[in-house]
Amino acid sequence: MISFIKKGIAGSKLGKPPGTILSFSGSPEKEVEFEHIRYNSVDFRQKMLKGSENVPAPDDSDDITWLCFFGQSDLGLMNRAAELYDIPHLLLEDILNPDHRPKLEIFDNQILIIVKMISINDEGSLVAEQVSFVVGKNYVLAFQEFPGDLFDPVRERLKKSLGRIRSMTADYLAFALLDLIVDNYFVVLEAVAEVLEGLEMTLIKEPSEFDVVDIHDLKMQLFYLRKIAWPLREVANGLQKAEIEIIRPHTKMYFTDVYDHSIRVLETTETLREVAIGVSELYMSNISLKMNEIMQTLTIISTIFIPTTFVAGIYGMNFEFMPELKWQWGYFGALGFMLMIGLVMLAFFRRKRWI
Amino acid sequence: MISFIKKGIAGSKLGKPPGTILSFSGSPEKEVEFEHIRYNSVDFRQKMLKGSENVPAPDDSDDITWLCFFGQSDLGLMNRAAELYDIPHLLLEDILNPDHRPKLEIFDNQILIIVKMISINDEGSLVAEQVSFVVGKNYVLAFQEFPGDLFDPVRERLKKSLGRIRSMTADYLAFALLDLIVDNYFVVLEAVAEVLEGLEMTLIKEPSEFDVVDIHDLKMQLFYLRKIAWPLREVANGLQKAEIEIIRPHTKMYFTDVYDHSIRVLETTETLREVAIGVSELYMSNISLKMNEIMQTLTIISTIFIPTTFVAGIYGMNFEFMPELKWQWGYFGALGFMLMIGLVMLAFFRRKRWI
Amino acid sequence: MISFIKKGIAGSKLGKPPGTILSFSGSPEKEVEFEHIRYNSVDFRQKMLKGSENVPAPDDSDDITWLCFFGQSDLGLMNRAAELYDIPHLLLEDILNPDHRPKLEIFDNQILIIVKMISINDEGSLVAEQVSFVVGKNYVLAFQEFPGDLFDPVRERLKKSLGRIRSMTADYLAFALLDLIVDNYFVVLEAVAEVLEGLEMTLIKEPSEFDVVDIHDLKMQLFYLRKIAWPLREVANGLQKAEIEIIRPHTKMYFTDVYDHSIRVLETTETLREVAIGVSELYMSNISLKMNEIMQTLTIISTIFIPTTFVAGIYGMNFEFMPELKWQWGYFGALGFMLMIGLVMLAFFRRKRWI
Amino acid sequence: MISFIKKGIAGSKLGKPPGTILSFSGSPEKEVEFEHIRYNSVDFRQKMLKGSENVPAPDDSDDITWLCFFGQSDLGLMNRAAELYDIPHLLLEDILNPDHRPKLEIFDNQILIIVKMISINDEGSLVAEQVSFVVGKNYVLAFQEFPGDLFDPVRERLKKSLGRIRSMTADYLAFALLDLIVDNYFVVLEAVAEVLEGLEMTLIKEPSEFDVVDIHDLKMQLFYLRKIAWPLREVANGLQKAEIEIIRPHTKMYFTDVYDHSIRVLETTETLREVAIGVSELYMSNISLKMNEIMQTLTIISTIFIPTTFVAGIYGMNFEFMPELKWQWGYFGALGFMLMIGLVMLAFFRRKRWI
Amino acid sequence: MISFIKKGIAGSKLGKPPGTILSFSGSPEKEVEFEHIRYNSVDFRQKMLKGSENVPAPDDSDDITWLCFFGQSDLGLMNRAAELYDIPHLLLEDILNPDHRPKLEIFDNQILIIVKMISINDEGSLVAEQVSFVVGKNYVLAFQEFPGDLFDPVRERLKKSLGRIRSMTADYLAFALLDLIVDNYFVVLEAVAEVLEGLEMTLIKEPSEFDVVDIHDLKMQLFYLRKIAWPLREVANGLQKAEIEIIRPHTKMYFTDVYDHSIRVLETTETLREVAIGVSELYMSNISLKMNEIMQTLTIISTIFIPTTFVAGIYGMNFEFMPELKWQWGYFGALGFMLMIGLVMLAFFRRKRWI
Repeated sequence: MISFIKKGIAGSKLGKPPGTILSFSGSPEKEVEFEHIRYNSVDFRQKMLKGSENVPAPDDSDDITWLCFFGQSDLGLMNRAAELYDIPHLLLEDILNPDHRPKLEIFDNQILIIVKMISINDEGSLVAEQVSFVVGKNYVLAFQEFPGDLFDPVRERLKKSLGRIRSMTADYLAFALLDLIVDNYFVVLEAVAEVLEGLEMTLIKEPSEFDVVDIHDLKMQLFYLRKIAWPLREVANGLQKAEIEIIRPHTKMYFTDVYDHSIRVLETTETLREVAIGVSELYMSNISLKMNEIMQTLTIISTIFIPTTFVAGIYGMNFEFMPELKWQWGYFGALGFMLMIGLVMLAFFRRKRWI
Repeated sequence: MISFIKKGIAGSKLGKPPGTILSFSGSPEKEVEFEHIRYNSVDFRQKMLKGSENVPAPDDSDDITWLCFFGQSDLGLMNRAAELYDIPHLLLEDILNPDHRPKLEIFDNQILIIVKMISINDEGSLVAEQVSFVVGKNYVLAFQEFPGDLFDPVRERLKKSLGRIRSMTADYLAFALLDLIVDNYFVVLEAVAEVLEGLEMTLIKEPSEFDVVDIHDLKMQLFYLRKIAWPLREVANGLQKAEIEIIRPHTKMYFTDVYDHSIRVLETTETLREVAIGVSELYMSNISLKMNEIMQTLTIISTIFIPTTFVAGIYGMNFEFMPELKWQWGYFGALGFMLMIGLVMLAFFRRKRWI
Repeated sequence: MISFIKKGIAGSKLGKPPGTILSFSGSPEKEVEFEHIRYNSVDFRQKMLKGSENVPAPDDSDDITWLCFFGQSDLGLMNRAAELYDIPHLLLEDILNPDHRPKLEIFDNQILIIVKMISINDEGSLVAEQVSFVVGKNYVLAFQEFPGDLFDPVRERLKKSLGRIRSMTADYLAFALLDLIVDNYFVVLEAVAEVLEGLEMTLIKEPSEFDVVDIHDLKMQLFYLRKIAWPLREVANGLQKAEIEIIRPHTKMYFTDVYDHSIRVLETTETLREVAIGVSELYMSNISLKMNEIMQTLTIISTIFIPTTFVAGIYGMNFEFMPELKWQWGYFGALGFMLMIGLVMLAFFRRKRWI
Repeated sequence: MISFIKKGIAGSKLGKPPGTILSFSGSPEKEVEFEHIRYNSVDFRQKMLKGSENVPAPDDSDDITWLCFFGQSDLGLMNRAAELYDIPHLLLEDILNPDHRPKLEIFDNQILIIVKMISINDEGSLVAEQVSFVVGKNYVLAFQEFPGDLFDPVRERLKKSLGRIRSMTADYLAFALLDLIVDNYFVVLEAVAEVLEGLEMTLIKEPSEFDVVDIHDLKMQLFYLRKIAWPLREVANGLQKAEIEIIRPHTKMYFTDVYDHSIRVLETTETLREVAIGVSELYMSNISLKMNEIMQTLTIISTIFIPTTFVAGIYGMNFEFMPELKWQWGYFGALGFMLMIGLVMLAFFRRKRWI
Repeated sequence: MISFIKKGIAGSKLGKPPGTILSFSGSPEKEVEFEHIRYNSVDFRQKMLKGSENVPAPDDSDDITWLCFFGQSDLGLMNRAAELYDIPHLLLEDILNPDHRPKLEIFDNQILIIVKMISINDEGSLVAEQVSFVVGKNYVLAFQEFPGDLFDPVRERLKKSLGRIRSMTADYLAFALLDLIVDNYFVVLEAVAEVLEGLEMTLIKEPSEFDVVDIHDLKMQLFYLRKIAWPLREVANGLQKAEIEIIRPHTKMYFTDVYDHSIRVLETTETLREVAIGVSELYMSNISLKMNEIMQTLTIISTIFIPTTFVAGIYGMNFEFMPELKWQWGYFGALGFMLMIGLVMLAFFRRKRWI
């Protein structure tokens, strides 16, 4: 019988008031930093602030403010930011819960987006990180689960004023960040597809090198990908349909694009999963086939030699009265008889198409 | 042929008028108690009442009344409570039927919630308990299937006035209780996930220790979890969408949170089920692989020694006229011939990549 | 090649005008009876009528009339009843077709309900019987496929005036009968669950007693149960949503109860089906496991003794010049060599964890 | 690698203007005939016309005209009929494409129905034939794919004025023909069910007679049946819901009946498919079981005799110095030792419950 | 452990502004050409233009303009065309992304259609090519992924004025091109069906020739086909339902026809997939069956000869005192005994129905 043990993160949150945020095992000795970017079509400023410094407050200017929080260990900072930008406590809890389901909440003057960023790390493993955005009229707050430079391409575009990003509103910045995240799914799916194709090739060309645990691992990864890709699609759909002032009519089309991509992510995931299942089934067929071959070899050898050995055994008996033993051609007769048995067996196997 | 026997609880209820409640096998000798909690933002009173005492009647005060019934053996008490709080007889039957499907019924001035509480007991088994709530303007009636302290965390929060629970209305209390129940699902799912991961590891690292009945048990548990998690989602959805005076606008957001969690419960259950299926399949592959290995060993040994034994058998025959027996190098020639057969077989196996 | 034969009941109805009712193989020699019950809150009359007697006509009184037809062999009686109670010919055909799909038809002043009654007979087999109801303002016509006492519990409640059935309208009587039918599903499902659990236990504790045909039979029964439970749910749903005068507002809640139960029937059926599939899979794993064990035994014995027998065979050869034969310690040396082979093999198997 | 070849009917239609009808391989030497039936409640006329004769034009009389075209080789005739009865060219193409999906098109004064007629031919194989109807105010045009007498039962009812068919409108005639087609599905499904039951019985009682290709064939037939039954349901649903003058209110109920039957066809098909899958699985279990039994027999015999043969081999060695050979009871001691080995093995097998 | 590598096309697009088009590996040395066709009911002109020439601008004439771009390596040309015909940059990106999901975008005066053309190339492999159309009031722009003559049948109809294509509007031209693409699916599906049928036949008649990798390949192809056929259906559905001026009422019926065909494509794909699964399962049954046969042969031979060889071994022992050896009929008695063992075994196998 299996027996379960009550523990883990969920356990320690039992019965706490909603909005309770557990203290994270972040490294408190190293002071947390956050980034403040402010730009408009002609200007771009970027600076790193210490966790203890003031969080820039929202204002009514036309400049776009982008605050980027790395890691989530400094709860005080989070709370100050939440207060300044009117983020309800329940939602802050969702942002800081690294295991939250991707979701979209649309308020009158704010949008909350929680998604999973998926990427390949240097060891070649898939890593999922929760990324949340709070998007307002002229600001975007981005919360990454771990410190990291994943938004660098967008920073680059802002700094070098590539494309029209600098002349667009905050919702476009949100789109650019989300688009980057969805594009990463394709990078991951391409890598998965390549590994899967490699496994398929190995199975077909070099079956003995094939490790069934690999395909099992891949299937598990694809389950996980599908699980987080489904709500991503919902988020993208919600954004393209949102009737809210923050999302300008001309950025809607961009969110539609993100939605299209998220559907493609889902479909590709499904297809890869079916291919993985197909490869598993092919593998099982191969095992059965190889077993058949092995057994066939054994059976052919055994059924040829077991009867002939029996004949040899007969003439190895030590009875005093065994007339054949005294015949001049007895030995060769026996050999001939055994040969005949062998040939009959071979003919039988050929008729059965075993050889 | 299988043959069925008519019996069980369902059998004894056949054709009874609706609302018939079977007498339970509760222990009538021990008098039943129930708990009466009454609080507002400044005050908190809690007392245990005997089953024979008067059930506190609903009133119009702004205090919140929470009645908590443990176990369901005292039908008289149940009936008195139902009468006082206007609970229709059919619904009381649902509350007292320990096998009822989770459901939500919304009336003008009352909500009935039936859910399954799932937890891990001291023996490490999953236990499901039916818990029902009747929520009114300023009261919550909670019915537990078995006596127990599962709501203690909420009592604690009330007593110590943690968070804002004391200043909120009865619907918030209902939310707090429901939230506690849903959070317990995560505790269970985490424990299940851990066991599943353990089984997967065992299978990969130490296949001989793996017991297929364990994974079968786990799959059955996951079927059951899914069966009760589905209607839980419906209940949470109904609550977040309810257009009724009892549920205040500012508590809606909390029920949305419960709904989010219930979806995550469902998705996690599904994912665990797929992982469990994946582990089963991996196990079947492993069995087949091991069989292949066993057969390969047998075949290699057999096909090398069966023909050579046959050769030895030939020269063990007692024919009078066997010229080879007299040759000086006959013995070593025979040994050499057998060695050659063995080497040919080994070469054959190597070409087939069996060794 | 499989080849099909055109015959059966369906064949004989080909191209007949709609509403054609085939003559049933009922026993015409025994005269058919039907039952006439008439009651109100103070009075209750019950009598058996011969098939040739007049069918009581509908009237405008406040008394409830319940006509109960047993078996369907007396077509004349059926037709007279249909005419009196304005049952369209097509619907009478549906009622009398024992293979009809459960369905609900709602007319302005009449409801037609066709459901399957499922029960366990004395031999322990599942029996399905089609039961139809025609419900009007103050009457219920019940048509059973076979004579039988399945509605006795309701008759009892009417006679003894248990619960409030006597003071309620005809729709409540219809509910009471339907409720009885749905409750019977639970009796059946409990019996199926028990058998299934028994099979699972047998498989785990005493696998050699397990008969795969039993689990196959059970799966087939569950397919059938699901097939008839699906439309039952639709019928119950239609009744609880019907906007029609015959169904009084205060009986709606009862039909909602029936609907809840029918969903539970469906879910339980699904769960049992999944458990049955799980048991089948466990069985297949067990077979494979046992095969592995058998093969392992064979391989261990064979690979130990085949090489040693070969060595014995060598020294059983009759060559004149075999130096070892003359050595004093040749025999014990050979025995030792064979022992060594055996030990090497055992070590090899232990390393492979086969023993 | 598999490689595909571009050919077939679809290939020859590539890029043709819509409405292009390929010349059929019908036998042009034999002149095509078509049937003209005209009736009202008092009169009935029926005649066969040659393909070259005029197609009777639609008129405004109250008589019902039924034109029945057998086979589709005479394109000129088809075109003349299409022109007279205002059938759009695209739809004529659909009617004449023998591979079209069942569909319903409702126009203001015409309905086009394309369905598959399924029946069992004299060789016991399933045959599908496309049948199309064009239904107008007072006419029905029926197009059969092959000449045949499949509508004879309806002709009979018309001729003998059975039921009320003669007094009804054209939509009722369409219903009668469609009903005949749907009823044929039941005949086929009954035959399939009987074959399936036969296979199941064979598998359980006489497994060696069971041919796996039969169940494979049956599953393929059921796939095909499901594929054509799905759109049939849609057609029936469309007809029962059609809001159009041609379908009189009092015939709606008949189309509802057809719809009910088409759902039953679908459900029965699904159930049969599941039973077929169940039988396949039972078969696979049986194969595995039989394999186990075979292997068990081999293992028991081998493991008893291989070690004892080894002992015999030892005492068959020709060493000069083998003390046991000279013992008086050596022979019987050896026999006893071998017997003991055999008994130990048997005990071992019994403990493992193999014998 | 599997490990993933980040690379591929998706990788190089990460974080680029939307609408970024990667330079394609087209051969820039060869100048790109595009085709300009302009026609009305009386006139038809066709010419090839160099990529450097001016793209004909849209005008208000009643002539239909059809521009056909082959391959996508000349980005400058694409951009000029996009500007002239007001194609938004995001959509141009979609057109030029060879991996885009089929989709339909409907604007006020333009429709964008992206579909996959599927065909069989000269090596007998399936080839998918992305084809996009931009349809305006009096023009159609077609973008092929690779140069090729796939639209030749439509060019032919235009040139020879076959059917009514020359007298119809631009939407009809779009329909003709789309219809050609959908018809190609049927060609492919017919080829797939034929290969599948061939595999099925091989499996049934000549199982040893059957290669499991073929059926695996086929299943993978069918996955792919289904993946691109699903959105094709959506595109066709969108077109038949579009409420927009460009699509004239009388061409709607044609798009409905395309929709019907796309559903048939989907259904046929599904059916083929189920047949492929059925064939796989039949194959697995066959492997198991063959294994049974092999093992049966081995077991029969082994269990007959292993015990008899044992008997021969006994009388081959060299004990000095073995009374049987001296009996006159000892040899024949032993032979008889062995024969008896063989016969008993044969009887045993016959009773088990193995022979």
